[in-house]
Amino acid sequence: MAKQKFSSESLTTMTEMVFPNDTNNLGNLMGGNLLRLMDICGAIAAQKHSSRVVVTASVDNVAFKDPIPIGSVVTLRAFVTRAFNSSMEVYIEVHAENIPAGERVMTNRAFYTFVAVDQTGRPIDVPAAVPQTEEEKQFYEAALRRRQLRLVLAGRM
Amino acid sequence: MAKQKFSSESLTTMTEMVFPNDTNNLGNLMGGNLLRLMDICGAIAAQKHSSRVVVTASVDNVAFKDPIPIGSVVTLRAFVTRAFNSSMEVYIEVHAENIPAGERVMTNRAFYTFVAVDQTGRPIDVPAAVPQTEEEKQFYEAALRRRQLRLVLAGRM
Amino acid sequence: MAKQKFSSESLTTMTEMVFPNDTNNLGNLMGGNLLRLMDICGAIAAQKHSSRVVVTASVDNVAFKDPIPIGSVVTLRAFVTRAFNSSMEVYIEVHAENIPAGERVMTNRAFYTFVAVDQTGRPIDVPAAVPQTEEEKQFYEAALRRRQLRLVLAGRM
Amino acid sequence: MAKQKFSSESLTTMTEMVFPNDTNNLGNLMGGNLLRLMDICGAIAAQKHSSRVVVTASVDNVAFKDPIPIGSVVTLRAFVTRAFNSSMEVYIEVHAENIPAGERVMTNRAFYTFVAVDQTGRPIDVPAAVPQTEEEKQFYEAALRRRQLRLVLAGRM
Amino acid sequence: MAKQKFSSESLTTMTEMVFPNDTNNLGNLMGGNLLRLMDICGAIAAQKHSSRVVVTASVDNVAFKDPIPIGSVVTLRAFVTRAFNSSMEVYIEVHAENIPAGERVMTNRAFYTFVAVDQTGRPIDVPAAVPQTEEEKQFYEAALRRRQLRLVLAGRM
Amino acid sequence: MAKQKFSSESLTTMTEMVFPNDTNNLGNLMGGNLLRLMDICGAIAAQKHSSRVVVTASVDNVAFKDPIPIGSVVTLRAFVTRAFNSSMEVYIEVHAENIPAGERVMTNRAFYTFVAVDQTGRPIDVPAAVPQTEEEKQFYEAALRRRQLRLVLAGRM
Ligand SMILES: CC(C)(COP(=O)(O)OP(=O)(O)OC[C@H]1O[C@@H](n2cnc3c(N)ncnc32)[C@H](O)[C@@H]1OP(=O)(O)O)[C@@H](O)C(=O)NCCC(=O)NCCS
Ligand SMILES: CC(C)(COP(=O)(O)OP(=O)(O)OC[C@H]1O[C@@H](n2cnc3c(N)ncnc32)[C@H](O)[C@@H]1OP(=O)(O)O)[C@@H](O)C(=O)NCCC(=O)NCCS
Ligand SMILES: CC(C)(COP(=O)(O)OP(=O)(O)OC[C@H]1O[C@@H](n2cnc3c(N)ncnc32)[C@H](O)[C@@H]1OP(=O)(O)O)[C@@H](O)C(=O)NCCC(=O)NCCS
Ligand SMILES: CC(C)(COP(=O)(O)OP(=O)(O)OC[C@H]1O[C@@H](n2cnc3c(N)ncnc32)[C@H](O)[C@@H]1OP(=O)(O)O)[C@@H](O)C(=O)NCCC(=O)NCCS
Repeated sequence: MAKQKFSSESLTTMTEMVFPNDTNNLGNLMGGNLLRLMDICGAIAAQKHSSRVVVTASVDNVAFKDPIPIGSVVTLRAFVTRAFNSSMEVYIEVHAENIPAGERVMTNRAFYTFVAVDQTGRPIDVPAAVPQTEEEKQFYEAALRRRQLRLVLAGRM
Repeated sequence: MAKQKFSSESLTTMTEMVFPNDTNNLGNLMGGNLLRLMDICGAIAAQKHSSRVVVTASVDNVAFKDPIPIGSVVTLRAFVTRAFNSSMEVYIEVHAENIPAGERVMTNRAFYTFVAVDQTGRPIDVPAAVPQTEEEKQFYEAALRRRQLRLVLAGRM
Repeated sequence: MAKQKFSSESLTTMTEMVFPNDTNNLGNLMGGNLLRLMDICGAIAAQKHSSRVVVTASVDNVAFKDPIPIGSVVTLRAFVTRAFNSSMEVYIEVHAENIPAGERVMTNRAFYTFVAVDQTGRPIDVPAAVPQTEEEKQFYEAALRRRQLRLVLAGRM
Repeated sequence: MAKQKFSSESLTTMTEMVFPNDTNNLGNLMGGNLLRLMDICGAIAAQKHSSRVVVTASVDNVAFKDPIPIGSVVTLRAFVTRAFNSSMEVYIEVHAENIPAGERVMTNRAFYTFVAVDQTGRPIDVPAAVPQTEEEKQFYEAALRRRQLRLVLAGRM
Repeated sequence: MAKQKFSSESLTTMTEMVFPNDTNNLGNLMGGNLLRLMDICGAIAAQKHSSRVVVTASVDNVAFKDPIPIGSVVTLRAFVTRAFNSSMEVYIEVHAENIPAGERVMTNRAFYTFVAVDQTGRPIDVPAAVPQTEEEKQFYEAALRRRQLRLVLAGRM
Repeated sequence: MAKQKFSSESLTTMTEMVFPNDTNNLGNLMGGNLLRLMDICGAIAAQKHSSRVVVTASVDNVAFKDPIPIGSVVTLRAFVTRAFNSSMEVYIEVHAENIPAGERVMTNRAFYTFVAVDQTGRPIDVPAAVPQTEEEKQFYEAALRRRQLRLVLAGRM
């Protein structure tokens, strides 16, 4: 197994349309559906980094500031910001686009943590993640603090 | 509109079976699917409290400590812990049950915030939430601190 | 295995939102979707009572007297009214709620029969169901007559 | 509007594959999913007969005598046996096929009642149904007795 | 195994309603959903002919000339036109019906090719398909030319 | 409206996981599900190019040469190769990845044609598509011949 990988090697892009069943009574995407899409996109990024089956260990606070109406195109972009032992922090960014109206906004950003596991579900070590761009380096630096906060919140530190 | 309501009036219970499509390669429920169920259950509780259409404003940190295998029965329990102006904090608790094995564990607890909106999506005031049981009172007291934390994290304070 | 269990031990509550795909051209829940939800809710109750995998053996006559519009919240409540050898009668009650309008009606009641089976699908005995409340006792008493009717209708008596 | 139509004009055939999400822990189709397919097939037959939007008014007792394993092909056949004023009785027959094994069994038969409605959901009269084959004539004759039974069971007679 | 079978023995009819989630922003069935339904219907026909698990090998050019609005009833009709060694050409025809409006049009026709495979996914020979009606004979005759065209387009000839 | 746009401006990437319900009895993605994903990805690309609602007008011959097992990650890449009046040819390329095994293959390539329409469904003109890279230029050149072939096959030329 590679000892380390670039953050960019795990970059994953998902594009989805908002269908009627994903929406609430006002015709806007329900928050829970977006959380689910972010989980799938993040899991694929973590899988690419670790070449392993991965499980979701946690999601950090997510704020929803913009409604996303039916018919919008939602684009998710995810990559591993930092790997610890068996766990990886993944940054996930969401843009929503109303193509006929020519509007595109970044609606959400979140950090999910995934853990690589073996066939019995036990944690297993992953390669280090090496940042290259300025954005990646900032995420990498701050990842340690976020890890501490979430392990405290989960009663693990 | 009622000026206040008891927390228990918004109590909502959901029971779901874990179907194949909800699971990952190890046959366990994917984290994102649970986040989506919690969102639906919490939204119903907030709707009961406010008698309004509600939208998800935020989800606080959620940790996933136990895998939930296919065929499990998942039970969610949600109620409004505290209402502010247009926003309500909802506590959501998840139990997973392997009925043939006679096992039942609490797998998750989380706080989601919902905002009551009118038909144009604008925030609208909701009744106060009045706690009665000891559990409700503790959640009520601590809700203010959690609100501050999440507004800071969302860059709103 | 327990020789008997209280009816209330199998009590199962499901809360569901009516999504666009569940509805017909008038925007009301299709009857078949409600029959499917009742089957899932009833199966979980029978599973709780028997601690076994269960299969649907029959559904008694169900009448649909009220349309349930999109956006409604549907609440199902199910429990085992009486257990025979391997079969259990389950009572299932459905309420539909239009929360913004403050309306809540009982839309349906039905009896499903489930059979506990082993891993090869063969019927296997279950504990007796012991009624406690007045409602449970009435269901328990009348269950025998309903069993006879449905076995006759199925050509088994 | 036609004053009468042949039963055979409403004949509807549906063929479906059993997918993983439709099955229980033993890998067999869940009863509720079959009830839902029967409802869709019957509704199309009633729609063909009445040229109207139709709603499910009731389902008579249904017995499930055979498990239908994943990968099976399920064929449904439905037609209007008799029309009353606004209501139509529909006969629905289900066959399950394990094609590689060369097995095909009739697993279920049921009677659903649909009511033709206008755009506001109010009942509206439909053409008479004229039976031609021997099978159709027998269903037509016996339909009156079944109607009485189900209206009694629904507390309408 | 039978050495030959009539085309009509594989005849498969599917009837489906168009639900909200299947439609685009104009409320019409999305092309990809129809391609998916045609694949399922064709696969069942090929399975009936070969009594084997089948996989999709190719789809020939499909043109979509009519929008199919939500609430339409879509009827698919498929049969094996000609069998080669392990592959079968299946003809699939789609009609869409707006029942209240009394309109019914043939919207699509397409040829899919399926290959019968054993449990490891390796191709396995199938019976010859014997045409009987005039329509079947014409499809049978022309099948050879279509086969050549699609093998050329797939770069296999 | 812009008179012309670069092909690359419509580039759309979708990443999807193969879930149990998408697969056949051998646990491989069904062809029809891939045709549906390609349709969604292609439609988004055509929407980006035209800033309009688009409908699928045709799909050219598609060959399926590799099975895609459950748990694979499927990546689709689509862009407009050439715009005519209201129609756009879109190239769609599919890769499937077995991440734990470190395998990645191009499984499919196809050309779909989409037409931009106004709110009543009538065709409306779109900007020209300008190729820049060598790959884009080759697709652009050959698009005219493919257009003729598909109009002939659809009986429109
Ligand atoms: C939630 C929303 C209605 C708030 O609108 P707004 O214009 O910011 O309105 P305000 O600033 O007056 O805030 C309204 C309430 O929301 C609360 N709120 C806003 N963001 C919040 C956050 N991240 N966490 C918790 N509460 C939040 C405010 O504190 C305020 O609460 P209060 O009325 O009880 O004091 C708006 O941001 C929105 O529509 N978001 C999208 C919701 C959605 O569609 N979710 C699913 C997306 S997939
Ligand atoms: C995630 C899981 C594998 C961790 O197992 P564990 O026995 O606690 O193992 P460890 O204590 O060795 O922790 C393994 C890693 O997970 C990390 N982790 C555990 N809980 C975490 C949390 N809440 N947030 C962030 N990381 C967490 C640990 O920090 C550790 O990271 P490291 O190896 O990089 O140092 C286990 O909790 C689990 O299976 N959870 C359920 C996952 C799941 O099914 N999610 C979907 C539920 S619907
Ligand atoms: C079915 C429905 C339209 C009947 O409306 P109503 O106000 O009771 O009207 P009526 O009393 O005039 O009855 C209309 C017809 O329905 C029939 N009907 C009503 N209940 C019935 C039942 N349980 N079983 C069989 N037929 C029934 C009546 O016999 C009558 O038939 P006829 O016109 O052929 O003589 C109404 O009950 C309804 O909307 N139900 C909900 C339908 C629905 O949404 N189903 C899915 C729920 S999830
Ligand atoms: C239900 C089933 C297990 C019964 O098996 P069987 O070989 O007939 O077994 P038995 O005759 O011993 O009957 C077992 C029990 O089922 C009950 N039963 C059978 N048919 C019934 C019916 N139509 N209604 C009510 N109870 C029924 C019997 O009364 C008996 O009850 P008891 O043990 O409490 O006295 C079998 O018919 C079956 O597998 N059916 C398919 C279940 C299924 O897959 N449902 C979904 C289909 S989509």
